[in-house]
Amino acid sequence: MTKFMEEAIKEAKLGAIEGGIPIGAVLVYKNKVIGRGHNKRIQKNSVVFHAEMDALENAGRINSSIYKDCELYTTLSPCIMCSGAILLYNIKKVIIGENKTFKGAEELLEKNGVKLEVLNDKNCIDMMEEFIKSNEELWNEDIGKE
Amino acid sequence: MTKFMEEAIKEAKLGAIEGGIPIGAVLVYKNKVIGRGHNKRIQKNSVVFHAEMDALENAGRINSSIYKDCELYTTLSPCIMCSGAILLYNIKKVIIGENKTFKGAEELLEKNGVKLEVLNDKNCIDMMEEFIKSNEELWNEDIGKE
Repeated sequence: MTKFMEEAIKEAKLGAIEGGIPIGAVLVYKNKVIGRGHNKRIQKNSVVFHAEMDALENAGRINSSIYKDCELYTTLSPCIMCSGAILLYNIKKVIIGENKTFKGAEELLEKNGVKLEVLNDKNCIDMMEEFIKSNEELWNEDIGKE
Repeated sequence: MTKFMEEAIKEAKLGAIEGGIPIGAVLVYKNKVIGRGHNKRIQKNSVVFHAEMDALENAGRINSSIYKDCELYTTLSPCIMCSGAILLYNIKKVIIGENKTFKGAEELLEKNGVKLEVLNDKNCIDMMEEFIKSNEELWNEDIGKE
């Protein structure tokens, strides 16, 4: 477990404490966290702020010349929206806590040259399994499932 | 020109008045606008709120059973991030003001069953051409170009 995934997990847990969906992410540039965030569907009534989007937003406005040297750590496999953001801004490496409970657009990312590292970390898996079990409707809403 | 594209253009012009990037969008359900928005990069220092994302956010939390019967009108071809959001939430039809000044992830959308209608409306083209000519750096930032 890298220290940056630990930071992403801290964000996920913060989301859980707030009553939200426990997914966290951090954006790292030159070995330093420059943006951190967590899913805000509940907290902000947001359909846009998945964890990865929140971390990107909190990092602020950046040119792709910086993004291309960033790494994004996220506790869960990024959905197609977040993967689209990763591709838009040319982030070249994504470290994924787990893809057992949900597998996002990993193929699209890899096809477009993004390097992925999937940890399948037990903390991340347990956190999502527990959440999904007791929040099926909310979870479906978050991933665009009827 | 449909009345809904006119609404999207109104949003784009509102963005321009605010000193922002002139791109607008509206989300339509059963012939009624349920969300409207425009690019907020400048206004909110946002890397997330492209016009389409802003319209989705302003529509509020919705299940895909509603999204799938929505149409999204946008003055400009949706980038890969916004296309990802369209795919995540299962929006099935997108009406695009123009794709001459920027062509987003139209192929990905079509490949995944989203119906596209491209108007190449002169108002939309003129608005973006004028903007890009005098804001190249800002525009590149918005579309993830170095």
